[in-house]
Amino acid sequence: MGESGIVDSLDEFLNVAIDAAKGAGEIIRRGFHEKKKVEHKGQVDLVTETDKACEDFIFNHLKRHFPEHKFIGEETTAAFGITELTEQPTWIVDPLDGTTNFVHGYPFVCVSIGLTVGKVPVVGVVYNPIIDELFTGARGKGAFLNGNPIKVSSQTELVKSLLATEVGTKRDKSTVDATTNRINDLLFRVRSLRMSGSCALNLCGIACGRIDIFYELGFGGPWDVAGGALIVEEAGGLVFDPSGKEFDITAQRVAASNPHLKEAFVQALGGGTI
Amino acid sequence: MGESGIVDSLDEFLNVAIDAAKGAGEIIRRGFHEKKKVEHKGQVDLVTETDKACEDFIFNHLKRHFPEHKFIGEETTAAFGITELTEQPTWIVDPLDGTTNFVHGYPFVCVSIGLTVGKVPVVGVVYNPIIDELFTGARGKGAFLNGNPIKVSSQTELVKSLLATEVGTKRDKSTVDATTNRINDLLFRVRSLRMSGSCALNLCGIACGRIDIFYELGFGGPWDVAGGALIVEEAGGLVFDPSGKEFDITAQRVAASNPHLKEAFVQALGGGTI
Repeated sequence: MGESGIVDSLDEFLNVAIDAAKGAGEIIRRGFHEKKKVEHKGQVDLVTETDKACEDFIFNHLKRHFPEHKFIGEETTAAFGITELTEQPTWIVDPLDGTTNFVHGYPFVCVSIGLTVGKVPVVGVVYNPIIDELFTGARGKGAFLNGNPIKVSSQTELVKSLLATEVGTKRDKSTVDATTNRINDLLFRVRSLRMSGSCALNLCGIACGRIDIFYELGFGGPWDVAGGALIVEEAGGLVFDPSGKEFDITAQRVAASNPHLKEAFVQALGGGTI
Repeated sequence: MGESGIVDSLDEFLNVAIDAAKGAGEIIRRGFHEKKKVEHKGQVDLVTETDKACEDFIFNHLKRHFPEHKFIGEETTAAFGITELTEQPTWIVDPLDGTTNFVHGYPFVCVSIGLTVGKVPVVGVVYNPIIDELFTGARGKGAFLNGNPIKVSSQTELVKSLLATEVGTKRDKSTVDATTNRINDLLFRVRSLRMSGSCALNLCGIACGRIDIFYELGFGGPWDVAGGALIVEEAGGLVFDPSGKEFDITAQRVAASNPHLKEAFVQALGGGTI
């Protein structure tokens, strides 16, 4: 498929992804208040049957419409190892981002679906079925929340900015110390701090201006960011490595902000030393 | 009014408080997506016209029904100084908890209304009008979310517990260092950490089992906890000082958990040295 073919097809890709996200969201909603069967991947990482049912649903839905496309999903990867990201059209899916929130009944959970072509995100859908917020975007066509256009905040001062981050799942001393030292530094430079437990929803928070700056290090994989990164960019925001360098979707490191704040934010994060 | 008179009247008090919270919630909902006029109380503390309009609405509504009752409200206090809490029936009101969230459009905002008699909370109403969650409770009559009974989590292990706290508004070095050192210690002992930006909603998170343990030091005043504390207790939870001692509604210090976790949580918070 050539470049113009991809652009012509973006609306179709987006609509199929929205249907997949809504179907998976219905599975999540049903499970949310039920007693959950929980398996432990580690002390703080959880996976549920809902996770697996959602990924199956999304995989089958996308495969039916786009049998030639590649697929990278969190649960498939957990079971069979990482699938290499190629230039081919590739769906990158987190069937249930915020699994810990799901297990505890904390309402920040979502489905995240991204499509890359030439390793570049071109479609993003992030759906929180508990509070019914559907974030969508397609390359060059803008970003939307429940069908209404969204844009990043217009904040220009770091000291008035609302920061989001997460503490991750690693609990070795050097990781935890680095995490809290970084938060300590940042608290002197920003307004306040939020932790929602969902990387994809934090990116969408940047996209709709609820949050001004966000970073996270050491999250699970490209499925946490593939959908949200495209939505941030289509909302007028920037997605970058916390060092200030170019964003690498496979690097498990992400930062995002509006265009005004990037430079000051990168400086506050250590000016490239992070 | 004697003790039996108070008990007989609890349903009436609760229903009037619910009407007040819903009316104020409508004011908040209308303002939430509008451009906000913001005054600065300090670098990180904000107050809006909505705040004031909500407190006026609630004050007038309660005064009309209970002209003899006392009233302590966040905005009234900011303008005229603290009103001493007496044995008399006293409504303690935060018209808009999560003001920073409101200003930024982050959907964790609420109205918090508590009634104390003999300085003991007997009615609590906390309403998040953005995601339409109404938490209610009256002494001896249980706690509810949107009319459905709620209870605290059944978690017994700290290491599997979801913790909520906040970084507050003070940015002097000793406060910030103490805040992040405490978080550092706790991260080795709990599953994960959430920060929502609303003390009252964190208490309600304990009440409905979304969060297992919560503490906050140095929040604004009794209006942040008067409604939520009663709801936690009626949901089967405990509200206590972070040192493990008895909760003092005027002390600007609070912790809450289910009954299983209190002892381990107090130990993790410093075993009474906090």
